[in-house]
Amino acid sequence: MNYNHIFSKIYDTLEETENPGEVASYIPELKNINPNKFGVHLTTLDGHHYSFGDSDEKFSIQSIAKVLALVLAYQLENEKLWERVGVEPSGTPFNSLVQLEYDKGIPRNPLINAGALVISDILISHFNEPKKQFIDFVRKVSGIPGIDFSVKIADSEKSVGYTNAALVNLMKSFGNIRNDIDDVLDFYFNLCSIEMTCKELSRTFLFLAGYGVCPYSNEQIINASKSKRINAIMQLCGFYDEAGEFSFKVGLPGKSGVGGGIIAIHPDKYSIAVWSPRLNKKGNSIRGMKFLELFTTETQASIF
Amino acid sequence: MNYNHIFSKIYDTLEETENPGEVASYIPELKNINPNKFGVHLTTLDGHHYSFGDSDEKFSIQSIAKVLALVLAYQLENEKLWERVGVEPSGTPFNSLVQLEYDKGIPRNPLINAGALVISDILISHFNEPKKQFIDFVRKVSGIPGIDFSVKIADSEKSVGYTNAALVNLMKSFGNIRNDIDDVLDFYFNLCSIEMTCKELSRTFLFLAGYGVCPYSNEQIINASKSKRINAIMQLCGFYDEAGEFSFKVGLPGKSGVGGGIIAIHPDKYSIAVWSPRLNKKGNSIRGMKFLELFTTETQASIF
Amino acid sequence: MNYNHIFSKIYDTLEETENPGEVASYIPELKNINPNKFGVHLTTLDGHHYSFGDSDEKFSIQSIAKVLALVLAYQLENEKLWERVGVEPSGTPFNSLVQLEYDKGIPRNPLINAGALVISDILISHFNEPKKQFIDFVRKVSGIPGIDFSVKIADSEKSVGYTNAALVNLMKSFGNIRNDIDDVLDFYFNLCSIEMTCKELSRTFLFLAGYGVCPYSNEQIINASKSKRINAIMQLCGFYDEAGEFSFKVGLPGKSGVGGGIIAIHPDKYSIAVWSPRLNKKGNSIRGMKFLELFTTETQASIF
Amino acid sequence: MNYNHIFSKIYDTLEETENPGEVASYIPELKNINPNKFGVHLTTLDGHHYSFGDSDEKFSIQSIAKVLALVLAYQLENEKLWERVGVEPSGTPFNSLVQLEYDKGIPRNPLINAGALVISDILISHFNEPKKQFIDFVRKVSGIPGIDFSVKIADSEKSVGYTNAALVNLMKSFGNIRNDIDDVLDFYFNLCSIEMTCKELSRTFLFLAGYGVCPYSNEQIINASKSKRINAIMQLCGFYDEAGEFSFKVGLPGKSGVGGGIIAIHPDKYSIAVWSPRLNKKGNSIRGMKFLELFTTETQASIF
Repeated sequence: MNYNHIFSKIYDTLEETENPGEVASYIPELKNINPNKFGVHLTTLDGHHYSFGDSDEKFSIQSIAKVLALVLAYQLENEKLWERVGVEPSGTPFNSLVQLEYDKGIPRNPLINAGALVISDILISHFNEPKKQFIDFVRKVSGIPGIDFSVKIADSEKSVGYTNAALVNLMKSFGNIRNDIDDVLDFYFNLCSIEMTCKELSRTFLFLAGYGVCPYSNEQIINASKSKRINAIMQLCGFYDEAGEFSFKVGLPGKSGVGGGIIAIHPDKYSIAVWSPRLNKKGNSIRGMKFLELFTTETQASIF
Repeated sequence: MNYNHIFSKIYDTLEETENPGEVASYIPELKNINPNKFGVHLTTLDGHHYSFGDSDEKFSIQSIAKVLALVLAYQLENEKLWERVGVEPSGTPFNSLVQLEYDKGIPRNPLINAGALVISDILISHFNEPKKQFIDFVRKVSGIPGIDFSVKIADSEKSVGYTNAALVNLMKSFGNIRNDIDDVLDFYFNLCSIEMTCKELSRTFLFLAGYGVCPYSNEQIINASKSKRINAIMQLCGFYDEAGEFSFKVGLPGKSGVGGGIIAIHPDKYSIAVWSPRLNKKGNSIRGMKFLELFTTETQASIF
Repeated sequence: MNYNHIFSKIYDTLEETENPGEVASYIPELKNINPNKFGVHLTTLDGHHYSFGDSDEKFSIQSIAKVLALVLAYQLENEKLWERVGVEPSGTPFNSLVQLEYDKGIPRNPLINAGALVISDILISHFNEPKKQFIDFVRKVSGIPGIDFSVKIADSEKSVGYTNAALVNLMKSFGNIRNDIDDVLDFYFNLCSIEMTCKELSRTFLFLAGYGVCPYSNEQIINASKSKRINAIMQLCGFYDEAGEFSFKVGLPGKSGVGGGIIAIHPDKYSIAVWSPRLNKKGNSIRGMKFLELFTTETQASIF
Repeated sequence: MNYNHIFSKIYDTLEETENPGEVASYIPELKNINPNKFGVHLTTLDGHHYSFGDSDEKFSIQSIAKVLALVLAYQLENEKLWERVGVEPSGTPFNSLVQLEYDKGIPRNPLINAGALVISDILISHFNEPKKQFIDFVRKVSGIPGIDFSVKIADSEKSVGYTNAALVNLMKSFGNIRNDIDDVLDFYFNLCSIEMTCKELSRTFLFLAGYGVCPYSNEQIINASKSKRINAIMQLCGFYDEAGEFSFKVGLPGKSGVGGGIIAIHPDKYSIAVWSPRLNKKGNSIRGMKFLELFTTETQASIF
């Protein structure tokens, strides 16, 4: 299938409608982005690439990186991981403390902030140089040595990161954080600061379409069963309290970030990355979601 | 693939472990069931049948019937339906009033009790003889004229149905119930009283594996897009607050009932019904879930 | 102290400010009231009367009657009463189901709707003719034979009383309602329909200033300890989620109703009834609260 | 009235019953206290003193000190104070984050932890040497120069104070904390570490029985209106989610601390301090509450 043609057709449709929403504004570094950027990149398991628009421009992948941290932690901890974090959708906004207090410090899933903080804590416990060893893992998975944290973004988030500090302190009070709070927050803010282009993002996540195998290197990043389970978690928990909406309209497992990026996986076929910085009230890219809805409708390709 | 052999092998594995949990006890009619019943039936789109155990014995499908009511209401109302009910997982127990009050009478999704009550209200508004017309629809979908409500079960539930009466009154106070409260409850309790065997259940839901087409009659019950969306809703909302657990371990869209039944759909392939009356604390069949987990592991077949 | 002069002075002050807020509109009978009505009546334990404005006009005392039902139920059940209802402020809006679900059907206190429904259920269990026997009690306490329910108001509330029906069904599901739901609702709506003038209201509640003794008849309605405890409950729970505000600014135990009435008690001194139909968002009379704030400031008389 | 005799009589009654409950154990310094300590001290406005048991032994007054911080902040800020903290009872446990998130960072009242953290923040903004200037205020009010913080207790609490760190971070994220988080926590933990004997505690709070005037020095600490309002806040919010219970059974404004102390005020009459370290599940002294219940019953003296 020639996806390039479909991309272009859908983009024209989108252009005919207004582009509402605002870019994330809670830190200056994110606010300065051009809100009208738009990029797509699709990589198939058999090595084809299709791209459109600003697909070669770096952006902050933000929460999308939480999936990579989860993959690594799951690999290291196996099923023991689920003693410290759940796999259920949150049903409430992404930074909610209510659920966490009710569940005695166990986050509902690893893709909400609280869950990613626990995953960060777990990775810190495993590594001597957590940040270095994590970014090395991301570079290995993507096959792209240049991928890196953005110190500027990480510092900027840290300066206003009171909600995350509240979450990590609350979990520490319940005994579900083992390391120093400042170390956990430092790792977490770096994790969310990673920058990629759509092309790099699509390529990085391709192993989740390939049952855990990275098709470039033929390396098994994670086994098939775990790879499927990561997809299942993305399906149910990848879009905060819009997970149902995304599943309903797009029908693929995926994850969004407040930088405006979305990654979606079609198991056994491809991974697709979209980037459009204007967000809806729930913190998800408006055009990114709409693009993927039209794309899976047009190609009649969803997992359902 | 010869599923019969796999069924038998998994059953042997299950038999080696204890069978904990209790049958639903809130009404006498459900409590009297033999807790050790176990049945499976799988129907493929191309007409093969595989069964095991008590697969020809009728049981109360309970909440599984909510999916059929949803299908009919979606067919009648199209996207307007979503003004009165959401598509997000509930994140809280299945009879919770908290969410409903917070969301001003709009249930999170059509598969929790509140949502199914709204769906019932919608169907009543469309029909002159709602119960008759609904059961006719179920008979048409299944191709089995003998399928019916159980008056005994419906009456029994009605006599203790105070939580559902609370839900429907609350939604009426918010204006999201249009018909008489007693009529809505009567329809709802009848809906949940439908009885099927595993074989009938599997056959009835096969159209959701076939993109909306019933393979027996070749009739398009619902179009492909809607069929996929029904599956997406089941994936995210079909197991109350264990939807994540089921997705994570089984990886198929499905729906459970407190009668101990579970239906699961593998799009483009098959539908499978399991029945085992002992439930966990969340109201889902313990052996039913475990069986399906082992089944999709063994056959390496999930949607992820 | 000549209260008449103070009443008039405060009224002049109030008249200089605008009179915002709306009358309760959820039933037509309440909506038809002239929103600018204003009446006050203060009765001292030693038999003096002070009144102002529309103090001889009947209005619907609504939730204020819950205190009288509580008095009677406490008298009949003694400390056993507190097994079925708490004494803690609710901290949430007056018709909230959240708290009730969390507390497994035990209302936080007897002055929120749920609590008054449990009190109604208790009174029904004690009496053959609950409504007649209750109104006889009110007549005895007040010494006014003409006090009665308003059938029109009760019927009107019943026709839209879905929230209360939700509450009573929910409590029935937890086993905290023993009688038929329709009987409980019928009693409750009649309870809330009682009509009094400010003068009658002040006179009726005077026994709570007198440590349980009705000064007209010298009858001990309730013993001193119970009388104090009723006042304590009013202090903490009498104004829904504005109990703190009322305590802070007025400093007397009291109870409001959505008809715009407020009763307040100065133990050992007097009872005072105010009526002004315009309500704030929390369902309390705006001018009634402000009047009492200025009154206790002016007279330097609060319990603190 | 000779209170000494009553004290002794009530103590004998208490001794006949078992003394359940545990001392606060979350920090070692509190855990090491002898759980069977018991002291009472009552000071009347006209200068009489009545004491019993270990009334001259220092203990950690903990949250009772929050009232003193509130008094000072109210004096400095006047009614502007209530823009940053409410006056409503919390209805939920004392360290709950739920309410705080729902109310966008505005604590329900100044006596729950979150509220006292905001009060701490306010005091820091007013002073150059906040801790010194606050303890000077406490010494002035009590007329006892030796009253001081316990560095050991403050440090001990700081080392496990993750819940309070969560609260202050959450409020900072809503903009309701103006100073550095570490400074606020340091002030707060010192505030809670103040040590007094029952005699000192009773004497320190006597001005709240005297409409704001300290009877020793004749100094007006706070005006009469504010003094009454502080009492009103204690009445509704002084015992976490047992404020209703305390009002119902004791009928005086008061405040408890997890060190086992309770202060209660009888306006125009006396202040009474009780100390018994064993706590109930809600964090209040069991014998302290029971003693005061029996005391106000015996003396027939409550504000109601």
